[in-house]
Amino acid sequence: MFKKILIANRGEIAVRIIRACREMDIETVAVYSEADKEALHVMLADEAVCIGPAKSKDSYLNMQNIISATVLTGATAIHPGFGFLSENSSFARMCEDCNITFIGPKADTIDLLGNKSKAKETMKNAGVPVIPGSDGEVETAKEALELANKIGYPVMLKASAGGGGKGMRAVYNPEDLEKLFTSAKAEAKAAFGDDKLYMEKLIINPKHIEVQILADSYGNVVHLGERDCSVQRRNQKMMEESPSAVMSPELRDKMGMAAVRAAQATGYVNAGTIEFLLDRDGNYYFMEMNTRIQVEHPVTEMVTGIDMIKEQLRIASGERMPYRQEDIIFKGHAIECRINAEDPSKGFMPCPGRVENVLFPGGFGVRVDSALYPGYVIPPCYDSMLAKVIAYGRDRDEAIQRMKRALSELIIDGIQTNIEYQYELLEREEIITGNYHTGLIEGK
Amino acid sequence: MFKKILIANRGEIAVRIIRACREMDIETVAVYSEADKEALHVMLADEAVCIGPAKSKDSYLNMQNIISATVLTGATAIHPGFGFLSENSSFARMCEDCNITFIGPKADTIDLLGNKSKAKETMKNAGVPVIPGSDGEVETAKEALELANKIGYPVMLKASAGGGGKGMRAVYNPEDLEKLFTSAKAEAKAAFGDDKLYMEKLIINPKHIEVQILADSYGNVVHLGERDCSVQRRNQKMMEESPSAVMSPELRDKMGMAAVRAAQATGYVNAGTIEFLLDRDGNYYFMEMNTRIQVEHPVTEMVTGIDMIKEQLRIASGERMPYRQEDIIFKGHAIECRINAEDPSKGFMPCPGRVENVLFPGGFGVRVDSALYPGYVIPPCYDSMLAKVIAYGRDRDEAIQRMKRALSELIIDGIQTNIEYQYELLEREEIITGNYHTGLIEGK
Repeated sequence: MFKKILIANRGEIAVRIIRACREMDIETVAVYSEADKEALHVMLADEAVCIGPAKSKDSYLNMQNIISATVLTGATAIHPGFGFLSENSSFARMCEDCNITFIGPKADTIDLLGNKSKAKETMKNAGVPVIPGSDGEVETAKEALELANKIGYPVMLKASAGGGGKGMRAVYNPEDLEKLFTSAKAEAKAAFGDDKLYMEKLIINPKHIEVQILADSYGNVVHLGERDCSVQRRNQKMMEESPSAVMSPELRDKMGMAAVRAAQATGYVNAGTIEFLLDRDGNYYFMEMNTRIQVEHPVTEMVTGIDMIKEQLRIASGERMPYRQEDIIFKGHAIECRINAEDPSKGFMPCPGRVENVLFPGGFGVRVDSALYPGYVIPPCYDSMLAKVIAYGRDRDEAIQRMKRALSELIIDGIQTNIEYQYELLEREEIITGNYHTGLIEGK
Repeated sequence: MFKKILIANRGEIAVRIIRACREMDIETVAVYSEADKEALHVMLADEAVCIGPAKSKDSYLNMQNIISATVLTGATAIHPGFGFLSENSSFARMCEDCNITFIGPKADTIDLLGNKSKAKETMKNAGVPVIPGSDGEVETAKEALELANKIGYPVMLKASAGGGGKGMRAVYNPEDLEKLFTSAKAEAKAAFGDDKLYMEKLIINPKHIEVQILADSYGNVVHLGERDCSVQRRNQKMMEESPSAVMSPELRDKMGMAAVRAAQATGYVNAGTIEFLLDRDGNYYFMEMNTRIQVEHPVTEMVTGIDMIKEQLRIASGERMPYRQEDIIFKGHAIECRINAEDPSKGFMPCPGRVENVLFPGGFGVRVDSALYPGYVIPPCYDSMLAKVIAYGRDRDEAIQRMKRALSELIIDGIQTNIEYQYELLEREEIITGNYHTGLIEGK
């Protein structure tokens, strides 16, 4: 096992990693920007190195400085956390070149999974369902019509060069296809100077279901069940739970095994997450694979009892995973609410500032992961997440009740937060029944 | 289920009960003394009633005022917590007379179990092992010798009227018996004017092992495994764990079933704890039964997943327990450290005062039960316990490592505490191996 590692991140995930290291007697090196001198991760780590000015590109994204800090402090591995350099294959490769263990998959795996079309192709070949659609460009309206008949309506036409919704058209029946094809093509041409279109099946009101996997260097892969992350705003997750209220044991097995195949097909090592869209008929489609630990990993930890960060460290240090799939037992239900410094009444505008009083909820089944402390000044330059509150219960109902209780106790004075917004979400019919989809927050 | 209950207690246990109620949509009434106006339980409850001056006898022990507050607020049940009136049969009887549900066993059961010799007799008849000894007085040295030969050395001679160690003699072999019998008798006579002696087997370096039971009103009794509470100072528990490191599944079954028989023999209803002494050979002896929730109940909650306070409420409201013994599954390991406002370097002298900064540990497997908040002034009139830190892990080693990590994060500024003392305890060889007994702290 490593004697000392460097944590190339900040905030609660840096604190989370320090906690796991401390429990494993691994020394920790924190890095921080000039804006983070007073941050909790700096205080909790055994050592701390300033790696540059406040701007992320000068500090938390400054590969050279981070590698230097690692060499300087004698750390032999880097945990990248999430965000920042965590899915940057150049950084992973730089670590490999410097004989530093990058705690995550190989650089080549990151590259493969970061390339959308290559990843999709790989999944298809591994028997992992992908969203049906064209292989590349659809050249004519006639071709589009034939394909749409094959994959079934509704379908989505998308500009190959696209982004931001330009050159996109949802098509609900064959009569509309030719007209929409033409207008999408024209819009794509105008927006991107490139009128190439491709087609995908349109999944209506899907759930965002992701499957956590762990893979060691000896070819062992297990999945740790699913997380339902359908409560999103602008593709930002707000609340996550495990298990999903709509999941059957059979579907869990099927999706879990698909996730295991996805990991195997890419030679994946360490913790990873396969994100799927799940439609109302129980069909699921590969979206992407996240090659890092995720914000919402605690709900999986609560229902499996497995400390994911410790597993990441063990796998990266070359240990063999001690369990097989049948050893992964799911028990109870866990929900996570992300508490952000933002004002829901003003379009969720970020609200940094000085936190006066802080009181975290406690008691049975309540977990708080946070880098907050009384008097902490939240710098405006980074993510607005202040804390993750996780509630665990014997069943979903208890977990929801416990989360409401926990949120009602949580005090963060001095700044605007989304605590009340989260509480009210928990009282919505869709959350209570579990029948919510990715359009819940934005009313789609 | 109750619509509103009154909590006849203060501090963290009052907060603990409020939390369970909130999760069950039960309204809560807090009571408080004049010294507790600013206490957290008062802020968290739905209503709060002042029941008298600071001195316990005028407030938290003032039965009349508590009953009045209950009637006044329309609460239909009282949870007594631990300490104060929780094992007072007169209070339980007063509740019964006023048609208020006392959340605990019947007054007669409290009476029976509060009477040491009656309790012992009842247990003996129920086949629960009690400490072997004389039935009442041992009149002569000859009689003492015969009995000691029967129960085996070492034995303890004790003054029937005794207390404070006077008239007590440990006897390790038959040769010494007559001489020690005579001197104990003389000392008893001198100290109490009564020279009657009785004899008990002397248990050397025992473990304090207690078994948690739950019993409903329909005769269903289950045990929730054991807690090892051998880390004590002057009979005050400091650190508790479940399971005990020295427990085998067979012994757990045997002690668990003995505890179930103890509950059945006394017509016990609600949560209760049977305390045993366990010797090095695996023999266990009934000490007493606590007819209330205990400080250390969280470790049992962590390893069973059962919320004990909710069960107490359900049982008291007349619900049937939904599980049988085989449904109680033990998973993982939990340790609790009691954090007190005291100075270990000055004989654990209580140190009340104003708490400045407070930062509780968080993250995976860490639970904090506390009524503390930044700026809280600890009144000098009550118990010195500030918080219970509970660490849960997949195994004992992880639980210990996690507890050390949690204690290293815990900040309570402004007063003296035993945080460091507890941390150092966790590094002692006896704790690491689990082979500690009740003499650990006092070096006996």
